[in-house]
Amino acid sequence: MSDWPDRRLIDLFGIRHPILQAPMAGASGVALAVAVSRAGGLGALPCALLSPDEVLAQVEAFRQEADGPLNLNFFCHTPPDPDPEAEAAWIAALAPYYAELGLDPEAPRPASSRAPFDEAFCALVETVRPAVVSFHFGLPAPDLLARVRASGARIISSATTVEEAVWLAERGCDAVIAMGFEAGGHRASFLTRDMNAQPGTFALVPQIVDAVDVPVIAAGGVADGRGMAAALALGAAGVQVGTAYLRSPESLIPDFHRQALASARDDGTAVTNLFTGRPARGLYNRLMAEIGPMSTAAPPFPTAAGALAPLRAARPGADFSNQWAGQAAALAQPIGAEDITLALAQDALDQLARLSGRPRPA
Amino acid sequence: MSDWPDRRLIDLFGIRHPILQAPMAGASGVALAVAVSRAGGLGALPCALLSPDEVLAQVEAFRQEADGPLNLNFFCHTPPDPDPEAEAAWIAALAPYYAELGLDPEAPRPASSRAPFDEAFCALVETVRPAVVSFHFGLPAPDLLARVRASGARIISSATTVEEAVWLAERGCDAVIAMGFEAGGHRASFLTRDMNAQPGTFALVPQIVDAVDVPVIAAGGVADGRGMAAALALGAAGVQVGTAYLRSPESLIPDFHRQALASARDDGTAVTNLFTGRPARGLYNRLMAEIGPMSTAAPPFPTAAGALAPLRAARPGADFSNQWAGQAAALAQPIGAEDITLALAQDALDQLARLSGRPRPA
Repeated sequence: MSDWPDRRLIDLFGIRHPILQAPMAGASGVALAVAVSRAGGLGALPCALLSPDEVLAQVEAFRQEADGPLNLNFFCHTPPDPDPEAEAAWIAALAPYYAELGLDPEAPRPASSRAPFDEAFCALVETVRPAVVSFHFGLPAPDLLARVRASGARIISSATTVEEAVWLAERGCDAVIAMGFEAGGHRASFLTRDMNAQPGTFALVPQIVDAVDVPVIAAGGVADGRGMAAALALGAAGVQVGTAYLRSPESLIPDFHRQALASARDDGTAVTNLFTGRPARGLYNRLMAEIGPMSTAAPPFPTAAGALAPLRAARPGADFSNQWAGQAAALAQPIGAEDITLALAQDALDQLARLSGRPRPA
Repeated sequence: MSDWPDRRLIDLFGIRHPILQAPMAGASGVALAVAVSRAGGLGALPCALLSPDEVLAQVEAFRQEADGPLNLNFFCHTPPDPDPEAEAAWIAALAPYYAELGLDPEAPRPASSRAPFDEAFCALVETVRPAVVSFHFGLPAPDLLARVRASGARIISSATTVEEAVWLAERGCDAVIAMGFEAGGHRASFLTRDMNAQPGTFALVPQIVDAVDVPVIAAGGVADGRGMAAALALGAAGVQVGTAYLRSPESLIPDFHRQALASARDDGTAVTNLFTGRPARGLYNRLMAEIGPMSTAAPPFPTAAGALAPLRAARPGADFSNQWAGQAAALAQPIGAEDITLALAQDALDQLARLSGRPRPA
C-alpha cells in the first residue's frame, strides 16, 4: 500500500499511512499509540492530565514497543484566575444533585488538573525530542513555541474555523488539523466562543484547504474507510481519528462509556461545557439532558470539573461523567487499534479505486 | 461523462448527472430549474410559497424550456392552531425593534403564507405528473401520499437523522436525502426538535447509507466537485445542492443577500428559528446576533414570520430578513447555474480519478 495520492503527511511525519491517532486525554495512553504506530499511522500521547515525569515514562514505554514517530499533545489554555463568585454560581446550579446524593456543597473539592504547556513540559520536549508536537486550544507563547521548533519537532494544531487555520499557519504550523463540528472531545476553538457557528467537517475542510498552504488533516466524523476517502476528496492530506478507537481494547475508557458506545446513535451526542467549562462533544447523559448541554453557569475551563468530582465519586457511571464521542461513534468497532488503522487505510484506498471505476489489483 | 460509479439516481430519475437542485422557496424558480435540467441534473420547483395555479404556470414554463424531468417540492408541516398568547410573547420580544422603527405592534399583520401539501396540491400533481415529488418536514398523510405514488412520481424526502431516514424508507420513499447540519434553509427535521444533536453531513451520510436500502442523496456543504466526490466516497448515490446556486443569475435572492454571500465565511451562519418559528440555517444578521439565533419566544412555524414582516417592510435589507445559506457559502460562485452544474459533475469525476492515481483521459 504505497499508492496514497497525497504523500505530504507521509513525508512530513515519516509514517506509512496518513492517519493520525487523536490524543484523547483520559481515554488513550501508550497501548493505543503503539498499536496505531505499528500499523503505520502516527501514534500520540495526550499529556494534559500527566506530569512531566509521567510523560517521560510513557514516552520510554512507547519507544520500547514501537519504532515509529511519536506525537506528544499538549493543551495551551490560559488557566483562569480564581473566581469564587462563578464557582458559587456553579455549585448553586448543581445544588439539586448535591442534595440528591446527600453531599455537602461546602466540603473541599479537588482542583482540576489540566495543565497547560509550560516550561517544564517544554524542557521535557527538548529532552525526549518527539517527532511531532501537537497543541490544542491554539499555540503556546512564542518563546516556548520557538524552543519546540528548535528541538526538531514538527508542530501541528487544530482549527475549528478558517480564521483559526490561517492564524496557525501564519505562526509556522507544519500542518493544520481541520476539526469539524462532528468531532468528539474538546472543541479546539481559540479565536471564537460561538458554538452556533462552528462548521461541520464537510464544509470546513475544503475552505481551510483553500486558505492555507500547509497540509490539512481532517478530523470529525472520520471513522471508517469511506470517511477517510471522503476527507481526501475534500482536499485533506490525511485524517485524525479518535472516536473510532474508543471501543478498541487499547482504549482506557470506563465500562459504562464503552457500553454506551456499543449502542451509540448519530443523534446521541451534543457539544457541552458542563464537564470542564469548555465546549466538548460527548454522549448525552442525565446532566446534559436536565441542565441543557451548554450552561452559562459553568465556570471557565478547567474549573467546572471540580464541582462535578464529588457527584461522580458518589454516583459512578454515566449520570455525571463526560463520555466524549464524535457523531460517528456508531461506526466504531470493538476490535484492536492496529486492525482499525489498517482497515481504515485499506478501505479508503479500495473506496477511491472503486469510485474511479478501476478496482485495485488484489 | 457517462462514467458515474453509482447510476442508481441516474436511472431512478432519468437524469445524466446525480445532482439535484435544492428547491429553495423564495430563492429559486423556473430559471434555475431549467438551467440545472439543461446541464443534466434534476431541476426542482419549490411550491410552499405558491398557489396551485402559480405552480401550474411554472411547470408549463419549465416544460417549454427544458426536456428533463422535474421535481416539485412541497412542505408537509401541520399548521398550528392560532395561539394569541404565543403571538403576544413574540411581539413582546420584538417590541424594541417595533419601537425603534416607530411601528405600532397592535397594527394588523399579514398571516404567513407557507402552505402544506393538501388536496389542491395533490390534484395538481395528478394533473401535471412531475417525474419526482419531494417533501420537506416528513411526508403527507397516507392517502395523499398514495395518490402521489399512483400518479407515477418518484417520491423523496429529507432526513436529518438516521431515525428519520428509516422512517421515510419504511414509508416507501424511492430515495432519501441525508441533510447534514451544514445545509442552508429549513432543517427538514420532523421526528426531533433537538438542534444540539443534529449530525453533520460527514457523520450522517454513511450512517444513513448503512441504515436504509434506498439510494442516499447527500445535502449540506456540497458546493463544488470536491464535495460531490466526498459525498460519493461516503456512500451517497448523489448530491443535492442549494447554496452553491444562490449567486447564479438564475437565483431570485435580493441584492443584500447576494452581496452578503460574496463575502461569506465558513463561520458566518447559524441555525435560527427567529424568522419562521422553525430552525433554518442562514447568514448571521442583526436580529440573530442580538436575540440569539434560537429563541423560545418564537411561535410555531410558520407564524413567527408574521411579526417580522412589518420590520422588514420598514427596514428593507439584512437586519430583519432571513438570508438562508449553508456553511459552504464561501464556495458559491457568481456564474450561471448550468455551468455550476456541469463543473460540479466534471470536477467530481476528475477528483475521483486523480485520487485513484489514474487521471481520466481528456
